[in-house]
Amino acid sequence: MKQFINDKETVVTNAIDGVIGSSGGCLAKLDGFPHIKVVVRTDWDKSKVALVSGGGSGHEPAHAGFVGQGMLTAAVCGDVFASPSLDAVLAGILAVTGKAGCLLIVKNYTGDRLNFGLAAERARAFGLKVNMVIVDDDAALPDLPQQRGLAGSLFVHKIAGAMAEAGEDLEAITAAAQRVISGANTIGMSLDTCTIPGSPKDNRIAVGKAELGLGIHGESGVEQVAYTNARDAMAMVVDKLAAIINDEPQVVLLNNLGGATDLEMAVLANELLNSKIAQQLKYIIGPARLMTSLDMRGFSVSLLPVKDSDILALNASYAPSAWPGLKPVQATELIPLPDGLKPVLPLATKNPKRREFIERCCNIFIACEADLNALDAKSGDGDTGSTLATASRALIGSLDRLPLADMTQLYRAIGLELSQTMGGSSGILLAIFFAAAGDASASGRDTIGALNVGLDRVQEVGGAQVGDRTLIDALRPALDALPEGLPAAASAARLAANFTATIVKAKAGRATYISADQLRGHNDPGAEAVARLFEQLI
Amino acid sequence: MKQFINDKETVVTNAIDGVIGSSGGCLAKLDGFPHIKVVVRTDWDKSKVALVSGGGSGHEPAHAGFVGQGMLTAAVCGDVFASPSLDAVLAGILAVTGKAGCLLIVKNYTGDRLNFGLAAERARAFGLKVNMVIVDDDAALPDLPQQRGLAGSLFVHKIAGAMAEAGEDLEAITAAAQRVISGANTIGMSLDTCTIPGSPKDNRIAVGKAELGLGIHGESGVEQVAYTNARDAMAMVVDKLAAIINDEPQVVLLNNLGGATDLEMAVLANELLNSKIAQQLKYIIGPARLMTSLDMRGFSVSLLPVKDSDILALNASYAPSAWPGLKPVQATELIPLPDGLKPVLPLATKNPKRREFIERCCNIFIACEADLNALDAKSGDGDTGSTLATASRALIGSLDRLPLADMTQLYRAIGLELSQTMGGSSGILLAIFFAAAGDASASGRDTIGALNVGLDRVQEVGGAQVGDRTLIDALRPALDALPEGLPAAASAARLAANFTATIVKAKAGRATYISADQLRGHNDPGAEAVARLFEQLI
Repeated sequence: MKQFINDKETVVTNAIDGVIGSSGGCLAKLDGFPHIKVVVRTDWDKSKVALVSGGGSGHEPAHAGFVGQGMLTAAVCGDVFASPSLDAVLAGILAVTGKAGCLLIVKNYTGDRLNFGLAAERARAFGLKVNMVIVDDDAALPDLPQQRGLAGSLFVHKIAGAMAEAGEDLEAITAAAQRVISGANTIGMSLDTCTIPGSPKDNRIAVGKAELGLGIHGESGVEQVAYTNARDAMAMVVDKLAAIINDEPQVVLLNNLGGATDLEMAVLANELLNSKIAQQLKYIIGPARLMTSLDMRGFSVSLLPVKDSDILALNASYAPSAWPGLKPVQATELIPLPDGLKPVLPLATKNPKRREFIERCCNIFIACEADLNALDAKSGDGDTGSTLATASRALIGSLDRLPLADMTQLYRAIGLELSQTMGGSSGILLAIFFAAAGDASASGRDTIGALNVGLDRVQEVGGAQVGDRTLIDALRPALDALPEGLPAAASAARLAANFTATIVKAKAGRATYISADQLRGHNDPGAEAVARLFEQLI
Repeated sequence: MKQFINDKETVVTNAIDGVIGSSGGCLAKLDGFPHIKVVVRTDWDKSKVALVSGGGSGHEPAHAGFVGQGMLTAAVCGDVFASPSLDAVLAGILAVTGKAGCLLIVKNYTGDRLNFGLAAERARAFGLKVNMVIVDDDAALPDLPQQRGLAGSLFVHKIAGAMAEAGEDLEAITAAAQRVISGANTIGMSLDTCTIPGSPKDNRIAVGKAELGLGIHGESGVEQVAYTNARDAMAMVVDKLAAIINDEPQVVLLNNLGGATDLEMAVLANELLNSKIAQQLKYIIGPARLMTSLDMRGFSVSLLPVKDSDILALNASYAPSAWPGLKPVQATELIPLPDGLKPVLPLATKNPKRREFIERCCNIFIACEADLNALDAKSGDGDTGSTLATASRALIGSLDRLPLADMTQLYRAIGLELSQTMGGSSGILLAIFFAAAGDASASGRDTIGALNVGLDRVQEVGGAQVGDRTLIDALRPALDALPEGLPAAASAARLAANFTATIVKAKAGRATYISADQLRGHNDPGAEAVARLFEQLI
């Protein structure tokens, strides 16, 4: 099992207890647990219209996460992807419904429709006013008689919730909910299936494929399409929506189906806000996990035509913390860089031999990118190769503007270049290395002398010594041997780099966090990079 | 590629544009993008102490997501898991620092320390007041000289942020930040590694194993431990923390490392709030994604001793939407079930033959759980088998209280039992089936007649007909053939169940959303269940 659950039988009840336990007393559950899984607001007084929603679990934070002031009054929870029982729905309705009545917000799935529908009948038999709306915002198959309910449900929860909180009556709230449902459209896309707790994963979606027109229960999408990148993926979703909507301004809700990282969702948000419908998007909700499908690496885009009263309701500040808020879409502000930061670069000068040498060094690092990454993955975060290769590529790209004819200026310019383009400790340490070498060169040191001063400064600021399992382990002996020629330096660097595989107690860098067993037998990637550079320069 | 990015070179800049674009104008970026990746508040007036943090990307919502009123003034972003460059940090400091000065909140990684440290030096050379604190809340290896900075950083961001917003001075804020850092302790655990954008995943953690004592850059944990379930996992983390803290009351922050579902995090929250340190936990933040490690399926627990001024700051309502709020930990309220809901059950009576027959039927469904789930995964959400097996187990467990001697009462009691224990449309439809069969039995129909009336009612409410690819396809012909004996019914059911594999346009249930290609060749799982029941009853 690769999931943080106790067993599949208790996953939903354990999770409900966790949600209630971390709610600060805002949520409670009905007795009858675990058969009856109903989460209710503790601050409810029945004088306002109650909003009851729910359905299968696995859509967290929906639905329990949206119970609270300004949204739902109660969430009736089923097992994972299974409708709650009739009795649970009835218990939820009876527990929260007063004279003002109750609106059931139900997604259009047979099970939910049947259970909520029959529960509504039984509650009406008790003399309660109960209305029901069916959310069917799925736009994947516009001709299907029964559209699914998807993340567009959140528009309904928030708008109806704000109206109920404001004391509006059941008929007005029901009419608004119906109007919102008829205006809402949603399309989803995913790169992978979800993992049902306690079940093996169905690897249905191959690499290079995506499913378009997804539901929220792990079922297959309406079509499998080729997947290339985030831009094309968002364009496909937007195309489907553009074909349905007219030219009205829209509120857009960008929903994470669960397993996409926040980094990916931000990339998708950027594509959405630069898509062909961008001009119509006036407000955005998310990106956020609102109506998920467990750990599905996918997203959905929901649209709702802009209407002033809806915007007020969507923007009402009272809401549970799972509600991400409504934001106006507006042009990004670019703030000028502070004065004194933009460096004054020396004039470019030429020296074909030095230019060729720098290119040669850079290409050596670029060629060993994958090897160094793999080595770093054993002891660090797997990016040594990429960091060096990225900086090398940038350095090659900067050759036309470097002062190649003057070694002092060149050292300093390389240091400046690396401090601008190379992240990580290696970037700053190499910037210090070249800046110090430039200072030394200015005061008359030869190349080997200048490089040694650079290395001294790196040890000073970085705090690492020979034997600490860093690139210094190879660079120091290489520089020491360099007066005897490149082959001697290369063989000293290689010997020293290989010796790092026996250093099992790192004292600097990320490798300090790694156990001896994991370090043993792997060269330090920085030392290895130095050894390869000298070896291949021979 | 199984990620929503365009390419690994642009993932961070695209994401920053997305975060800013969906911020409603609250965030902006500095010029110098993409080399300089600094996200700033647009409502900043420099009269208060500026708070600058940042580091590598891949920890979203940290750090850009926490830029805003009451938290950070600017976030300086590096590439994925790489420190930002010196110039970027310096630009961030210069852009937001006024006379009140600036506090740099830096996690204890060499690269961040170097870049932020040198940038602080350079900013001071401009005459600015700049202090720096190093967050080192990692408690995985208490004896290590350099502890890592982890999710405990959020305590510092929020407490220092509230103080800065309130106009406190740089020295007071720095002292509070130092105090919070020295009190904070964090331990993480993960079941899987993370996926670095554009790189293959390192499958380092085998099934049945977890890594304990994790950093936030995908590096290996301090130790690999056996993983059994959420309870034991949380107990291991809590044991590590309990060994460090004294008996003071604590605020706990439960952080999702990115890839755990909200369902799992809620299960973990429940375990945490019932762990051996539960009595010391007075306030909870989360569970939420605060300091993630891309899509790592893991969590971390951070503790901070309760101090009144910190609680006020952690509870201050001004905060970006990524801040989940502080909640007091308190006992869960259990609300009594509404009147009239608890059903009056008939007295239990005995009939060993019927009891044995029901058990036999239930065991047939339990035995084919996996097969039916696999079949349902082709056309639905993969739970038909589990739904039937769970209900069957519950029915077996209820046999002692069933009125086995009276068929009419027995039908109704089974209907009631199923409506309480079985989710999904099958639960309610079977409840209707048995309730209607009970009514028919009461009015004198024999077994076959009663079952036929039940099926009629199911078709009425559910709206499905023979040929719609549901269990009705097998049950109707089986009941029609039943007067000729069980073997005839079984063979009719089998023939009809197999015929469902040729029905490629479903008209009811989830299969309606599935394309013909995916349905062809697979029996409907409901029809298959009926066929297996009759076949194995012979």
